[in-house]
Formats: sequence, structure tokens, C-alpha cells
Amino acid sequence: MSRAVAFVPAHLSVIFSVHLAEDPRAAGSRGAGIVIDDGVYVTVSEGNGCTLNGETRTIDPVDRLTDALGVEATVAIETDLPLGQGFGISGAATLGTALAANAAFDLAMTENALIEAAHVAEVEAGTGLGDVVAQARGGVPLRLDPGAPGYGMIDAIPVRTDLEYYSLGSIDTVDVLAGATESISAAGDRAVEHLQATPTLEALFRLGVSFSREADLLPADVAAVIEDVEAAGGRACVGHLGKTVVAIDRGLSQAGYDAVPSAVYPTGAALLRGE
Amino acid sequence: MSRAVAFVPAHLSVIFSVHLAEDPRAAGSRGAGIVIDDGVYVTVSEGNGCTLNGETRTIDPVDRLTDALGVEATVAIETDLPLGQGFGISGAATLGTALAANAAFDLAMTENALIEAAHVAEVEAGTGLGDVVAQARGGVPLRLDPGAPGYGMIDAIPVRTDLEYYSLGSIDTVDVLAGATESISAAGDRAVEHLQATPTLEALFRLGVSFSREADLLPADVAAVIEDVEAAGGRACVGHLGKTVVAIDRGLSQAGYDAVPSAVYPTGAALLRGE
Repeated sequence: MSRAVAFVPAHLSVIFSVHLAEDPRAAGSRGAGIVIDDGVYVTVSEGNGCTLNGETRTIDPVDRLTDALGVEATVAIETDLPLGQGFGISGAATLGTALAANAAFDLAMTENALIEAAHVAEVEAGTGLGDVVAQARGGVPLRLDPGAPGYGMIDAIPVRTDLEYYSLGSIDTVDVLAGATESISAAGDRAVEHLQATPTLEALFRLGVSFSREADLLPADVAAVIEDVEAAGGRACVGHLGKTVVAIDRGLSQAGYDAVPSAVYPTGAALLRGE
Repeated sequence: MSRAVAFVPAHLSVIFSVHLAEDPRAAGSRGAGIVIDDGVYVTVSEGNGCTLNGETRTIDPVDRLTDALGVEATVAIETDLPLGQGFGISGAATLGTALAANAAFDLAMTENALIEAAHVAEVEAGTGLGDVVAQARGGVPLRLDPGAPGYGMIDAIPVRTDLEYYSLGSIDTVDVLAGATESISAAGDRAVEHLQATPTLEALFRLGVSFSREADLLPADVAAVIEDVEAAGGRACVGHLGKTVVAIDRGLSQAGYDAVPSAVYPTGAALLRGE
């Protein structure tokens, strides 16, 4: 095969704590989030360059990954989702490139090795810390430790549910992750411990909101939307690092918002059928 | 919710070695296999009793699991696949019961805890050693260590391909696993090491045949089918413990067999959408 396609679902990071380490395989984040039906299709073939929805674009972790794999690849990324709004699109693009490049170039790497390579590229680019391993797992992942497979232990909350999301704009991931993250991490670690004791979807949303408030990651406009959903009897939280509010079932519509319908995607990233 | 449904894909165990341990969470098998599109639907609701395709049936690991979870459940299993022919149906039924029971009875257990409970039930029933963790992962799993999540490290060969299978009958899993397994395990461990060095689908099939021959798990009628497929230019191996030959693409049809079409199922077991 000289061309391959992978699908990687988007990941909304609801709770996280930052864990730096000398070895990027061991670095990353603990936390919990939601993998959704929408995501990224990545087509890899021989050549050079990267496009996002048809337009030439440099995506730092994708460049780092193809360098690390030692391939000269054309990477075509297609997605309906925006970068920088908390969907983990850079991680999805990088993991999809890894899975598709392995098939297109017959690299004979295992899934864990490809997940590790994508995780390392994201960590080194500073564009994400835990999206790649979450997107490889699918569902509602609980990242109990930071790091790539074999470094970090991952679990999940086994639920299927419809969701909705509504985006109020973007936050610069690199800026936040480059700043002081101690208070974020203290709040994140506390929330993860509580969630382990009560691993349910309702607890994830409740702890997600309290984490975001404690970590100072809940802008007033985002908090107002969450309050509107709760006032209408629903449950919502925010996907980090971004300003995307996600609600269980039709919680946003019921509060009067023009939200995008989605659902928990129960499984992880996968190569699509070959041609 | 008081009723829930899970789908668990079948798993053809191609290479394995047996690892006994005092703690059933740490016991199991190393090995490699193929998760396929076909599988088992398990519906769990309040009540008592187990049915397989509508007929009352006692499935030991399913009984053990519901006891361990402390639930009084009606378990309805639907599948087009036969028990005892190497598809891991007992493991699939048990894992599906775990996922569906967690949702139906609001047990608030994590995915790893449910996989562990199903693995322990299978190991204690003597009906399987590695199917549950493979079926939870999906694709072409490489079980690098024995045991449940957190005990055994699992990886996978990232491939998508069409397959075919053809069954010549059954082998009694309990009898083989209760017998002397040293020579099986020695051959299995060698094959896993070779596969780690060359993690490709072709290597899995090649090593699967040589493992089966060395482990004395290749009856003459099964070997004859594999030879026919190879003579027609294809590649086949056998799913253990059973007499089901699996071939890449249309390898069995091309050798004149009336085979069942299937494919690699890229992801693992999952709860279906609630009602």
C-alpha cells in the first residue's frame, strides 16, 4: 500500500493536571475527558507537505512526527472541527498521521509504538499533553498517569450517551501550557482522585466544572452558558484548552443554544480499510 | 437504565502460551490473535437466568461473573458463531455481560475493572485465558504479558484487512488447558518474541502455523486446509482452541472452500446506545 487513511475522534479534555518529565514518553497529563463522534481523517501518501481541509498548513507535531518516523509524506487532514477550541485536533492529526504512515510506508510498527511517537511529537511541540492517548482509547478515558502506553495507565468510564457542544472561541494551548501550571495541576489531581472514587458521567461533569473554576480556566462567558444549561435541568462542562461547552443529551438546545449534536464515540482511533 | 446491551467481537487466538498464577488477575496467556467483525450481543436486565440464542443455557464464566458483581441478572446472548470452535465466545459473553450489567445496574465500575472481572471469571472457569483482554482491545492484539489490565501489557498490530474463516469442528478448551501445557507455552513464547521483532499480519500468520505445528495443535484436517490455501497463493492459520481456519482476504474461497467472509474489527468491545 502506498496510501492509507486513518480516523481519529476528537477529545474534549474535561479535567487535567500537567506532568513535566525529561523523557517526553513519560511526560503528559493525568485527567479525564470525552471522545466524541466527530474527528479527523488523515490521508498519508508519498510526497511532501501538509494540508488542512485542502489548504497548505504547517502543523508542528505532524512535522515532528514524520521526521521521527523518517518518512517523506504528504499528509492531508480533513475535519469539520476547529483547531484551538479544545477538541484535541492537533493530537488527532498527529495520531492519524502515525497510523496512516505506518500502513502507507510499511513501517511495521505496533499500535503502542505509533501512539508513543504521536504523544512525543505533541509533548515536544507543546500542543497537547494527553489527547493522543485518550484518542487512541476512545470513550470517556481516565488518564490515571501521564505518558505514552507503558508509561501511563489508562482506564475509562463505560458510558454511551448523546451529547451537544457549543463553541465560544479559542485559547492558545501553547501559552497556557508554557505558563505556571501548579494550581491547575493541584486542582486536576484532586478532581481525578474524586472521579476514581465515583467513575460516572455525572461525576465527570460535576468535577469538570469545579476543576475549571479552581484552575481559573472558566471564563465568564463559558460559565454563563454552563449555568444556563444547569438552570434548564441539564449538565454541562467545558473542554480544555478552549471555550467549547459540552452538555449531556440535548442540554444546550434545551437551554436555547444553537448547539452541534454529537455523542460519545466508544472506541479509539483506527486505520480505515485499505483500497 | 434497567436494561443494557453490549457488543463484543469474536477473537481468534493464533499464538498463545499459558501462564498460571495464584492470583487469577495475573494469570492468563501471552499471545496474539485476530478480533473479527462477527461477535456476540449481550442484553442484561433484572431477573435470573441465561439464554444463548433464545435457549436456556448455563455458561459457567457468565454465572461466576454475575455472582462476583453481586447482581441478579437475566443475560440474553445472541450470536451467529458457535461455542468451542476457537472464536472466544465464552469470553465475549462474559465481557459483554460485565459491560451491560454495569450500565443496567448502575454499578459505577470502570472499563478496566469490568475487563478484570470478566477475565477472572474466564480464568477461574477454565474456559479461556486471553480472549477477554483481546476482545476489549480489538484489532490484532499482541498480549505481551498475561493478565487483566494493569497486570498484562497489551499492544496490537495496526492493520485492516478482509478475512475469511472455515470451521472444521471443535476442541474442548477445558481439556487442553487442564493438560500439560509446557510444550505449548515454550512454542508460544518463542513465536511472540519473533512477532514482536516483526509485527506484521504476514508474520502473525506464518508464526501462527509454525506455533500450531510445534505445539501439536494442528490436526491433519486443519493442516490440509491451510496447505490448500497456501498452494492457491494465500495465507491461512488456525484459531485456538478450535479447528477454525482463518485466511487473509479471499484466501479460502480461492482455494475452493465455502468460507464465511469477515474482516479485522479494528476496535474493542463496547456498550451500545441506551434506549
